[in-house]
Amino acid sequence: MKNFTYWNPTRIIFGRGTIAQLRDLIPQDEKILMTYGGGSIFKNGVYDQVKTALQTMSLQEFGGIEANPTYETLMKAVEIVKKEGITFLLAVGGGSVLDGTKFIAAASRFEGDDPWDILAKGAKVKSAISFGSVLTLPATGSEMNSGAVISRKSIQEKRDFGSPLTFPLFSILDPSSTFSLPTKQIRNGIVDTFIHTVEQYLTYPVATPLQDRQAEAILKTLVEEADMILSDPKDYDAMATFMWCATQALNGVLGCGVVQDWATHIIGHELTAFYGLDHAETLAIVYPALLRYKKKAKAEKLLQFGQRIFGINGLKRDDQIESAIEATETFFHHIGMPTRLQNYQIDAKEAAEKIRERFILRDNKIGEHKDIFPDDVKAILLAAA
Amino acid sequence: MKNFTYWNPTRIIFGRGTIAQLRDLIPQDEKILMTYGGGSIFKNGVYDQVKTALQTMSLQEFGGIEANPTYETLMKAVEIVKKEGITFLLAVGGGSVLDGTKFIAAASRFEGDDPWDILAKGAKVKSAISFGSVLTLPATGSEMNSGAVISRKSIQEKRDFGSPLTFPLFSILDPSSTFSLPTKQIRNGIVDTFIHTVEQYLTYPVATPLQDRQAEAILKTLVEEADMILSDPKDYDAMATFMWCATQALNGVLGCGVVQDWATHIIGHELTAFYGLDHAETLAIVYPALLRYKKKAKAEKLLQFGQRIFGINGLKRDDQIESAIEATETFFHHIGMPTRLQNYQIDAKEAAEKIRERFILRDNKIGEHKDIFPDDVKAILLAAA
Repeated sequence: MKNFTYWNPTRIIFGRGTIAQLRDLIPQDEKILMTYGGGSIFKNGVYDQVKTALQTMSLQEFGGIEANPTYETLMKAVEIVKKEGITFLLAVGGGSVLDGTKFIAAASRFEGDDPWDILAKGAKVKSAISFGSVLTLPATGSEMNSGAVISRKSIQEKRDFGSPLTFPLFSILDPSSTFSLPTKQIRNGIVDTFIHTVEQYLTYPVATPLQDRQAEAILKTLVEEADMILSDPKDYDAMATFMWCATQALNGVLGCGVVQDWATHIIGHELTAFYGLDHAETLAIVYPALLRYKKKAKAEKLLQFGQRIFGINGLKRDDQIESAIEATETFFHHIGMPTRLQNYQIDAKEAAEKIRERFILRDNKIGEHKDIFPDDVKAILLAAA
Repeated sequence: MKNFTYWNPTRIIFGRGTIAQLRDLIPQDEKILMTYGGGSIFKNGVYDQVKTALQTMSLQEFGGIEANPTYETLMKAVEIVKKEGITFLLAVGGGSVLDGTKFIAAASRFEGDDPWDILAKGAKVKSAISFGSVLTLPATGSEMNSGAVISRKSIQEKRDFGSPLTFPLFSILDPSSTFSLPTKQIRNGIVDTFIHTVEQYLTYPVATPLQDRQAEAILKTLVEEADMILSDPKDYDAMATFMWCATQALNGVLGCGVVQDWATHIIGHELTAFYGLDHAETLAIVYPALLRYKKKAKAEKLLQFGQRIFGINGLKRDDQIESAIEATETFFHHIGMPTRLQNYQIDAKEAAEKIRERFILRDNKIGEHKDIFPDDVKAILLAAA
């Protein structure tokens, strides 16, 4: 087991009717800016619940944070924060609103020239506005971690940052607020949660039997519950399980003491930056191709994963491994998620070359062995044609 | 799934050589009181590592906190805290030292007449001294929760308390500091961790498939790793896994959204109070008897537990259940833990009657259905003869 530190100060309030607790979670004298996305919170009733809970408090609004939240949009919120003397942010929505709000929190207090430096140059976050969240879309785990991914439209870049100062103070998770989610977003959330888990699990063994089983707990639950989650979006217990899986997959616990990969995320970000694919769609394309490309380095864990998650036993070693990868693809297809670039009419040769060039510029070496170089990225994307 | 809140602000620093980080974890101007137990920290080198890390700081010592820490001993530390103007406590040891330090932290700032009221009357903790810990004995999970169990010798009482103010600020877990533990303490720690887990799992189903698998992750790991843990106390990876299992079993995650039992703990405390048995020894006596007594109410979970932890399949329903209970006993025996009162020369009739009377006085109804009354406690203890 590797040395690690774990710290996660976010308070989780989970369950039916919990949005009303907002009034006790935010001090009465804060000037609040509520941030949200495209307006789904008007349809699912969450907007009204938040307004009712906070009716006696100073509450302004900033809507329109897009999926893959952009620097351009978020800087408008930063202006409002400064102009209006906002002291507390309340993110109401999914991972994009949460990620965007983390950036607003840090950028509003940034003392350098350009807050983009936080993302592009790793400039240190020395101060951030406090914030909480009301989660309406289980997927990214952003409700219980300190990380965020932000895009800059003008230069087609997608970058991440994180700071001990950008944990949500609290996150309210009421599964009933997910009942009106479109199937596509639920499907995306399942894949996102699945890939977050395997990025911290499907690498090579370093004597972490507990962490392995904790990761497998999430994977097995997702595979077993996916039909329930997708067939009835108003099944409270199924949505509660899905919501808690998504949070647990990326709150830091799975990463304790293990080796981590994250190559699929880093490559996937480029597919979103260039082609506008949903984050989860990019992961489902890259991951199976990456597993095949790295199947020797990941052999031990692929065998364990196949056996414990999909019950694959009794084949020859190579066949066990290939079956585990196939089972992953089959699971994605079963929940309606494509796994190939051609499914989006993307020319694989063009995409692979464009993204290879970007990796050359960045001098990135990725994967758990830091041995995935630009040419390997290209090969992986060509294999995902 | 039931509604829940989860909050755990303790920072975990885990791994080889991490005790040296103490100097960065405690502000330079604190007046520290280091608390410890019977002196094992002198043998395992931890005392020297702590002293070296904090050599430039104000550091006083309070040793002699016993297993099942007593109010009588701890109040002596409270006197020192007040007299010396101590501002930070550092618990160095196992769960008893940690629990005792939590009480010292709260009692030193208690404004009522007698800090025993915190335990006996549930008096609210309104302030507590900050504290951290260096853990040397994996077992109780106290290093990452806010609870403590304290005994009062003079009246043979054992009571618990907890407060949001009594989470450790940090806990350092260096598995190498466990290398000199006696086998008996390791065995106790495994059983303690096992029972903490099942108290939050082996009840009745409330649609929590993820939490079930998270609990099973710990149980399965303990069962699979126990021989490694016990056979070579200097096996770093085995001890690291054991240590992390113990922490994860009682840091609040397993309890999220589930039904909890805790009857075995409550009954077991009385066996310690009257007969001085180690905490884990009492759990191993009470639990199998309680499972048999409550096997109808726990049937669904007992079947799942037997199948997933011990691979019990293909029998008739009643036999599956009995086999799951037998497998638990066999596991305890395998690691050298007795499961009967007679193993300690305790007269079951006398013990059962004495403890029944105490439950009558307390008006306790315990177990996940709150349906274990004093007569049931007696019956369970008679069955554990």
